[in-house]
Amino acid sequence: MKEKDDNQEIENQDILQDLSEQGKTDELLEMFEELPTMDVAEFMEEKPLDEVIEYLKKLDLEDQGRIFSDFSLDLQLKLFHSLDRRTFANIFGQMFSDIRADLYQELTKEEQIELLPYLSKKVREDVIILSAYPPETAGGIMTTDFATIFADMTSSEALAKIRNDAPSKDMIYYIYVIDHSMVMKGLVTLKDLVMADPKTRVTEMLNEFFVSAEVNEDRESVAQKIEKYDLVAMPVLNSLNQLVGIVSHEEAIDIIRKEETEDMEKFMGIMPSENDEEYMSTSSFHHFKKRVVWLVSLAAIGIISGMIINEYQSVLEHFIILAMYMPMMAATGGNTGSQAATVVIRALSLGEIDDKDWSKIVLKEMRISFMLSVCVALLTYFKIAFLSFHSLLPEGFTMVHIGGVISLAIAIQVITSAVIGAGLPLIVRRMGGDPAVVASPAITTIVDITGLLIYFSTASLILGIS
Amino acid sequence: MKEKDDNQEIENQDILQDLSEQGKTDELLEMFEELPTMDVAEFMEEKPLDEVIEYLKKLDLEDQGRIFSDFSLDLQLKLFHSLDRRTFANIFGQMFSDIRADLYQELTKEEQIELLPYLSKKVREDVIILSAYPPETAGGIMTTDFATIFADMTSSEALAKIRNDAPSKDMIYYIYVIDHSMVMKGLVTLKDLVMADPKTRVTEMLNEFFVSAEVNEDRESVAQKIEKYDLVAMPVLNSLNQLVGIVSHEEAIDIIRKEETEDMEKFMGIMPSENDEEYMSTSSFHHFKKRVVWLVSLAAIGIISGMIINEYQSVLEHFIILAMYMPMMAATGGNTGSQAATVVIRALSLGEIDDKDWSKIVLKEMRISFMLSVCVALLTYFKIAFLSFHSLLPEGFTMVHIGGVISLAIAIQVITSAVIGAGLPLIVRRMGGDPAVVASPAITTIVDITGLLIYFSTASLILGIS
Repeated sequence: MKEKDDNQEIENQDILQDLSEQGKTDELLEMFEELPTMDVAEFMEEKPLDEVIEYLKKLDLEDQGRIFSDFSLDLQLKLFHSLDRRTFANIFGQMFSDIRADLYQELTKEEQIELLPYLSKKVREDVIILSAYPPETAGGIMTTDFATIFADMTSSEALAKIRNDAPSKDMIYYIYVIDHSMVMKGLVTLKDLVMADPKTRVTEMLNEFFVSAEVNEDRESVAQKIEKYDLVAMPVLNSLNQLVGIVSHEEAIDIIRKEETEDMEKFMGIMPSENDEEYMSTSSFHHFKKRVVWLVSLAAIGIISGMIINEYQSVLEHFIILAMYMPMMAATGGNTGSQAATVVIRALSLGEIDDKDWSKIVLKEMRISFMLSVCVALLTYFKIAFLSFHSLLPEGFTMVHIGGVISLAIAIQVITSAVIGAGLPLIVRRMGGDPAVVASPAITTIVDITGLLIYFSTASLILGIS
Repeated sequence: MKEKDDNQEIENQDILQDLSEQGKTDELLEMFEELPTMDVAEFMEEKPLDEVIEYLKKLDLEDQGRIFSDFSLDLQLKLFHSLDRRTFANIFGQMFSDIRADLYQELTKEEQIELLPYLSKKVREDVIILSAYPPETAGGIMTTDFATIFADMTSSEALAKIRNDAPSKDMIYYIYVIDHSMVMKGLVTLKDLVMADPKTRVTEMLNEFFVSAEVNEDRESVAQKIEKYDLVAMPVLNSLNQLVGIVSHEEAIDIIRKEETEDMEKFMGIMPSENDEEYMSTSSFHHFKKRVVWLVSLAAIGIISGMIINEYQSVLEHFIILAMYMPMMAATGGNTGSQAATVVIRALSLGEIDDKDWSKIVLKEMRISFMLSVCVALLTYFKIAFLSFHSLLPEGFTMVHIGGVISLAIAIQVITSAVIGAGLPLIVRRMGGDPAVVASPAITTIVDITGLLIYFSTASLILGIS
């Protein structure tokens, strides 16, 4: 056996590539069976379509179905269009049921109707039922590849039934115990069955208090339960408590990734989509719609910034130098506020903190931002000394005055922004909302406004103008 | 059996709560064994410490270890300090090995030395070895709870060995095949063994091309492999190819969550930490250090904004109204740029797009931002008409001029910002870096500068002043 290293994936690709270049088709086909299907799928993904079809034809049907399941949707669709209906239907019948249903939904109505007659009754029903559930529910992500036994079986009878059924089932680590009308009674693990005395009845080892999902349950809640209870798979029940499918842990990882994207988009002021959309396949107009609401709303609120500057127009006319530091004031406030919000939102969502601790959190952010404010204020003072030394100032004012005023204002701005950035998500959570909706652009806009108020009131107060 | 619903977790808590309030201790203890340990752990988490100790004492040792493993680190440490060393050591010996090693590392050197003599040789060695690996490596997250067999066994001998070993092993869905010096030869699934004829030798069903991690491999790469290959667990090998541990799928989910936090922090200009730190337990000074570098650097770069305004001081003195719309110019640019960057970074990290497609992506962002720019420009024009109708203007200029200039400038700013926000992550990826380092604050600062340049050059060009 070859030395294992970090780059096993690349190594596996190399094995396949070498065999393919040397024309050793038999060894290649053997490797297709030995290597993880994902590696085989990736290898084929890079090949011309007719070569892929050649390879598939030489494999047995079960392997075809597994490898096909690991292909990208793009390649799956290309093969659908290239293969004759019967050949495709055979592979389709061997695919994992959840991936199969996803592919089916990508076909046009006409293509679906064309395909259905070629499918076995079992596959046809399965694909139609799975496609009927909305994609964001447990039903929309579940698979029907699971193994069932009856409660009155002995452990050896149960194992025999699994041996008999399982070649078509991928997930047999949890065995679901049902009655004759498919109502779920509990579960046993394959481990329980293997460890048990062959004569033990399933009832004796039955877990009745299992964790399950309701078929219409939100997929995020499903993923969270799988994560919380460390499950390999979770049963999905309909309203009659009948077992209709299972959601596997890999599906949970997938959902966590998707929800992560949604949270990040929300935080950046992009409206989440109802369906999972890929960047390129989403139209520009749809992208536009997802971004425009926040962008225009915030630009509209920016009206307040304009009004404040308008109010202090005379100060600005006297000290045009103040205009020079307005952008820095706004940017630093926005950055500090967004940093604080990010940290608090993540800590809330990971359960590290609770909105009940708000006073401690705000106090902590005040301490942190005090240290930040000292650094930023010092920098600002030196910047003004360096950059504006020769600026014209009204009679009686020196650079020391102006530098002091601006540095002080920016220090206050840093602390205020951190408190606002940390406080807003806490308030939203308190009111029962999702803290991630306190988008970073919103915080930026708010601290722009507070920043200008701080800036001009500090200046007019200390410099004694209005 | 009770009706299943969405709130099964709450329901389970209610069952326990009711039994506890009614003082039905026997039924309660029975339920502790029936319900998922996570629910039991959560129930105890809310109880006073002495009550928790009472409950634990009444359970058998294996259940104690399982429930203890699901406690928060906080409660684990409290119990360490409350229980006598021998009682604690017994529970400790029954914990899951990875969680046990994590707890061990939280103890002080003195506490560790105090505890060690009470542990069995096996537990002692296990905990010391697991604690020796850095937390960000495969070794640092792996567990030693796995089942092994030898290649020359028959399937029934293998099952017998597993039956014999497994009560102490949690993960027996993958069975690892080793030689007598622990070198890993391959793996079989429990499914393979159960399905096989009892006389079949393990060699015949051995998967030799398994996916594995090297003990020093970065944990993120481990999680990605588990995700890619849909594994329930992945073996971890040392440099001699000896099997030293396994990383389970629940650990992979955990890592994905942590890396997600790191990415989001990076994107917000917060330096990632080397260890996993909780918000509250991290000192304010440490929080400060994580944020200050970006904040001060960006404030320093803000010097350029100041210089540009300085350059156009005379324009600003003539048209003080331009100052009023500077904050909106900066904010809208920052928001557009961050939105575009978020979308592109996510699409890159999910593999939806590739940096090779840069021209298509930039073109798409131009189309999207063109639509956004029309909306924002119209809004700006009406805003100026409404807000600045009575502003004083130099002779020969009307509000129509000024409104047109500012709206045009903001439209150009929106498009430029989107292109910069989408382009920077693509450039970083092209140069082989992590696109998430293109922090939103950095984009905001850059588009502040380009925005001011656009603003003043448009104004001076069209209004004919300099």
